[in-house]
Amino acid sequence: MSVLTAAADQSLRTPLPVLGRDVTVPLVTGGEVTYAALDYAASAPALQRVWDDVAAYAPYYGSVHRGAGYLSQLSTDLFEKARTTVAEFLDCRDGDQVVFTRSTTDSLNLLAAALPAGCQVFVFETEHHASLLPWRNADVTYLDAPRTPEQAVATLERALAEREQGPALVCVTGASNVTGELWPVRELSAAAHAHGARIVLDAAQLAPHHPVSVGELDVDWVVFSGHKLYAPFGTGVLAGRADWLRAAEPYLAGGGASRKVARRADGGVEVEWHDSAARHEAGSPNVIGAYAVASACKALVEEGFDRLVARERYLIRKVREGLAEVPEVRVLSLFGDDAPRVGVISFVVEGWNSSHFAAALSAEYGIGVRDGLFCAHPLIRTLLGSEPQTQGECGAPEAAPGEKSLNAIRVSFGAGTPDEHVERFVGAVKELVTEGARWNYRTEDGRCVPDTSAGAAVGTAAA
Amino acid sequence: MSVLTAAADQSLRTPLPVLGRDVTVPLVTGGEVTYAALDYAASAPALQRVWDDVAAYAPYYGSVHRGAGYLSQLSTDLFEKARTTVAEFLDCRDGDQVVFTRSTTDSLNLLAAALPAGCQVFVFETEHHASLLPWRNADVTYLDAPRTPEQAVATLERALAEREQGPALVCVTGASNVTGELWPVRELSAAAHAHGARIVLDAAQLAPHHPVSVGELDVDWVVFSGHKLYAPFGTGVLAGRADWLRAAEPYLAGGGASRKVARRADGGVEVEWHDSAARHEAGSPNVIGAYAVASACKALVEEGFDRLVARERYLIRKVREGLAEVPEVRVLSLFGDDAPRVGVISFVVEGWNSSHFAAALSAEYGIGVRDGLFCAHPLIRTLLGSEPQTQGECGAPEAAPGEKSLNAIRVSFGAGTPDEHVERFVGAVKELVTEGARWNYRTEDGRCVPDTSAGAAVGTAAA
Repeated sequence: MSVLTAAADQSLRTPLPVLGRDVTVPLVTGGEVTYAALDYAASAPALQRVWDDVAAYAPYYGSVHRGAGYLSQLSTDLFEKARTTVAEFLDCRDGDQVVFTRSTTDSLNLLAAALPAGCQVFVFETEHHASLLPWRNADVTYLDAPRTPEQAVATLERALAEREQGPALVCVTGASNVTGELWPVRELSAAAHAHGARIVLDAAQLAPHHPVSVGELDVDWVVFSGHKLYAPFGTGVLAGRADWLRAAEPYLAGGGASRKVARRADGGVEVEWHDSAARHEAGSPNVIGAYAVASACKALVEEGFDRLVARERYLIRKVREGLAEVPEVRVLSLFGDDAPRVGVISFVVEGWNSSHFAAALSAEYGIGVRDGLFCAHPLIRTLLGSEPQTQGECGAPEAAPGEKSLNAIRVSFGAGTPDEHVERFVGAVKELVTEGARWNYRTEDGRCVPDTSAGAAVGTAAA
Repeated sequence: MSVLTAAADQSLRTPLPVLGRDVTVPLVTGGEVTYAALDYAASAPALQRVWDDVAAYAPYYGSVHRGAGYLSQLSTDLFEKARTTVAEFLDCRDGDQVVFTRSTTDSLNLLAAALPAGCQVFVFETEHHASLLPWRNADVTYLDAPRTPEQAVATLERALAEREQGPALVCVTGASNVTGELWPVRELSAAAHAHGARIVLDAAQLAPHHPVSVGELDVDWVVFSGHKLYAPFGTGVLAGRADWLRAAEPYLAGGGASRKVARRADGGVEVEWHDSAARHEAGSPNVIGAYAVASACKALVEEGFDRLVARERYLIRKVREGLAEVPEVRVLSLFGDDAPRVGVISFVVEGWNSSHFAAALSAEYGIGVRDGLFCAHPLIRTLLGSEPQTQGECGAPEAAPGEKSLNAIRVSFGAGTPDEHVERFVGAVKELVTEGARWNYRTEDGRCVPDTSAGAAVGTAAA
């Protein structure tokens, strides 16, 4: 092995330091083990750097905007500078606005509230609920799940060609929160624009793993969440074109969004609203949250996305190759084995209820995955077809469909994941499938939990 | 002095430890000084205990709800337990819901979105914009500023007696964000209920300073912000009756709020929403923010509100007695000198533009107050009458009214404020009024800032 290869290999092997990397958790079988956080797609741990930045800033925290004190002005500058950092991170156009929200869900609800009258919305049924449900006041067309990226583009093209005149918005995910597969954003964006529609990119699962360029992808807006981007302090982002946002009623009504408020002669109240991002940010902003997001953006850019993407590919390969060796495991996919993807992989295990399997991974191996439907019910139904399982319950999957929920297991990881976590995960899957759980589990309050009564270890219960 | 008195005096003199208590800031006149944060009414520093709790938890942060891992379950428990802590802090009734929002503004916008059809809203013009503006879809009656608490009750009684049949809501502040004066919440609540209306208490300025009992005050809802309650991590609270909340459309549409989502035969999407607080909390919750609020609630209760209230009264007296010695200072008040109040005091200084005065307090004394209209424009106009000043600009107040904004200075403090901060503030006010600023200031980007060019100290410029 040449020196160069060894260095490259070493760089590929090194995760970014995150909080909680040394936390140990108890095993039901005895002893403790470092916790393997493999639920990044729901919430990622904070980057150590993000935490350090927040901790260094916290004593300097002050009231923003019209506070006259030194720390107020420092905090105001820091908050407004966070917008610039995020705009650079997303490669925004001149004139784009960066609005701080609380999450991706909040960002899309804000955009939904800002749609022009009569706007038609187009969204694939494969989206998670944050992208699927906010369009309550619009005429929504739900598009069937495509089975290739090309089919996605063709499906959208067809739907847009058939649409009525008027404003339209396409909402599409950058990377699926269930399959991790990348969607053909640039092509969908071209299709949308060719038909006079606009497009918002849901980058909740993309931004933590890949560079996102508003300019290159030519999307009109992009949204993401801080808590999936290693900055879990309650802040999300909506960034993009200012015109619809400026023309819309303020998302929240209150101070900060209003420039001038006065009683009218008739006793009512007249309000002049801001035109800037502040229009939709009424109330005292979450300065620490915005600063944390900006810190994460900087950290990822400075670390270099090329290395992070290469490392994540290496981890994805490890997991997928490991799972492929277990015939009982079925990995869920829309676009097939060769599709480019991020570190989000969902699967079911033949003969196991997913909640039971996930509970055993946690209790016997200290591995935190997620079981359920991942707030993407229609997609899970499409992917699982006729394999209903009972969510939250132990035991083998139910045979009868009907009221039973579908259920899967999702493993997800990212910049802070060490090799050992995914290796432990693959080993645990193999062991559980071949040898079964070493412990008995029971259903309690809708969750599958280890039975902690004496002698509940498998094989000792009869004693 | 007896031992007992000395002990009581000592207890009265001790602030709670907060972040930033040792932070020093540069003075334009040379040297550094510890920062006196006197803008608590906008955002209070974090209690050291809140920060310590957050820092201890941060490595254990995990994805909540269906995460199967140990840290996910720990985080879920912690998040749900935070609701219970807040409910206890507010002395909620059985069956009340605690919804985590991002701020008071967000909480009131949520309640506004949950009003039953045809609901009439009654709100005094003296409220800050967060309470004044969210009622966009309701029939709002703005009530003129009362000049006594009794007049407030009488004004409300009269308005409610004249109202149409149907659901109604009164929104009232517990303590004014401008004058700090307490409002007669229990009496207003009795009036509201006597007329078949409901009442929401805006406790943004009350909860950090006084115990708030939903039961005793008999209010239907209460709202407050974490960042004013020594927990600046992006979380606010709406707590109270569940019925209107349960009947309302979810505030945000997305995962977490939805129990079940399915495609309909006609291609649409059918959603079954949660009935619990989760109904209005779509998206991944801000676990750290909620935990921080709960930590602050615990800290205040354990410290004992009696002592905190007594100490704050002592600080209020210090400030008010000091300001009373300066004839050029006019303290703003609705209810007069004897009204009970929290540590929020607004004033104007004859011959000074408020922005200029606030800038000098910061640059020459390291004191952070706020100048402006405090997101309560109608109240400031009522209180200042015909004394227009130019907001953000240096120099003496403008004589001509018209487009010029009104402007005042607000000093506010709380559990973390040491005696020295308010003593320095009183001394600085006296010195500025009698001796003038020692530095020249200029208007820049709508702010009054010290002129940092060489020789800008007063008296040296001509050299």
